[in-house]
Amino acid sequence: MDQSQIVFGVRALIETIEAKRPITKVYLQKGNSGELFKELEQLLRKNSIRPSYVPIEKLNKLAKGNHQGAVAAISPVDFRSFETVVEAVLETAKTPLFLLLDQITDVRNFGAIIRTSECTGVNAIIVPKTGAAPINSVAIKTSAGAALTLPIAQVDHIKDAVYYLQASGVQVVAATEKATQDLYEVNFKKPTALIMGSEDKGIASSLLKLADYSAKLPMLGKISSLNVSVACGAFLYEIVRQRHT
Amino acid sequence: MDQSQIVFGVRALIETIEAKRPITKVYLQKGNSGELFKELEQLLRKNSIRPSYVPIEKLNKLAKGNHQGAVAAISPVDFRSFETVVEAVLETAKTPLFLLLDQITDVRNFGAIIRTSECTGVNAIIVPKTGAAPINSVAIKTSAGAALTLPIAQVDHIKDAVYYLQASGVQVVAATEKATQDLYEVNFKKPTALIMGSEDKGIASSLLKLADYSAKLPMLGKISSLNVSVACGAFLYEIVRQRHT
Repeated sequence: MDQSQIVFGVRALIETIEAKRPITKVYLQKGNSGELFKELEQLLRKNSIRPSYVPIEKLNKLAKGNHQGAVAAISPVDFRSFETVVEAVLETAKTPLFLLLDQITDVRNFGAIIRTSECTGVNAIIVPKTGAAPINSVAIKTSAGAALTLPIAQVDHIKDAVYYLQASGVQVVAATEKATQDLYEVNFKKPTALIMGSEDKGIASSLLKLADYSAKLPMLGKISSLNVSVACGAFLYEIVRQRHT
Repeated sequence: MDQSQIVFGVRALIETIEAKRPITKVYLQKGNSGELFKELEQLLRKNSIRPSYVPIEKLNKLAKGNHQGAVAAISPVDFRSFETVVEAVLETAKTPLFLLLDQITDVRNFGAIIRTSECTGVNAIIVPKTGAAPINSVAIKTSAGAALTLPIAQVDHIKDAVYYLQASGVQVVAATEKATQDLYEVNFKKPTALIMGSEDKGIASSLLKLADYSAKLPMLGKISSLNVSVACGAFLYEIVRQRHT
């Protein structure tokens, strides 16, 4: 948890959760009890944060202080509000480019995607609040630090972001092997939001239906899919090519 | 070493090395001696294979049999002879496409590159005999199995491959951030060999000099380079675009 900030103590954790700080991990002492501790557990449940129950020795290693059986890691990345991020991009970017990640769970893929985004002019990345890879030290390292500078916004559901962006005049393009047209046929010179799906399941079908266009990368061999960070890079560079040549 | 073949016994290892089988790892028992064992150690040195010295318990786990203090893992991939591979491609491929990897050391990057190669019509991958990532079980898994089907040839030096390919009428294109022209300006409809460099040092300058063209991906942000498997994917998909649209 090198790059993360550590918070410890039951009361401190409660305050951190209530302040909606980006918690990446919570460790609680096995077999602990007490009224305040129970309150913390309840609050965690309410906020869909699943704590790991660990022996006290692990907590002693994580926190140099009186942790009272409760330690949390806070992401060094301060997620910004979705609307704030989108409105800022729409106001300032010449041709806005958003990247929507539907349940990318591998931190190395996530980091590589953030890095590629920084290199290809993506204005903001949108991720769901739950079920996505955490921005931990591995993700930050793999991103070559871009995770700390590129705006990343969390939404409850990616489909809310799709509605909002479409209402703002942004075309939404889903990257999926199920598409009938190749990505070269899409006009990326317009304001665009690209959706990339998870490593195993791809984009949820409820999301696919909402997209204005679906597009695929040509697959010339027998394997039916690419690593998601490679596929994302190929898509983003097609956008760069269309916009800058 | 799940996907690797295990060879054990001092004599068996000596024979394996002499047969030039693709050894990925050698484990020797700490503190072992004996004349034949010394001969094995000498042969390993001569072939630039660095053994790991481990306790006997580790060897017992690796090999279910009388290992005599010597166990090796053999790559399930049978590297083919460079000339055989190249000649076969030149004879059969419509527009040959070779990928030359100069010291890619990360197995996950290597695996992702092999997978992308299979999806983009690369006819063969050329790697150097030493200093490259091994084709181990992680690489095979990351390649989605493509490592077992796509021809991969080893050469002593990548520059020998460059000379040979150029003499066979194949243009050699180096992917490097130091290039002045973007990849979109290169005509990839010709028979092509693409060189990708290592994660940290890029392509060796002695190799860069030999290439017919150098080309770069546009970098629109502050970060100066991409993950190598992402960069390789963006290059290969530009080749696909030029050849198939």
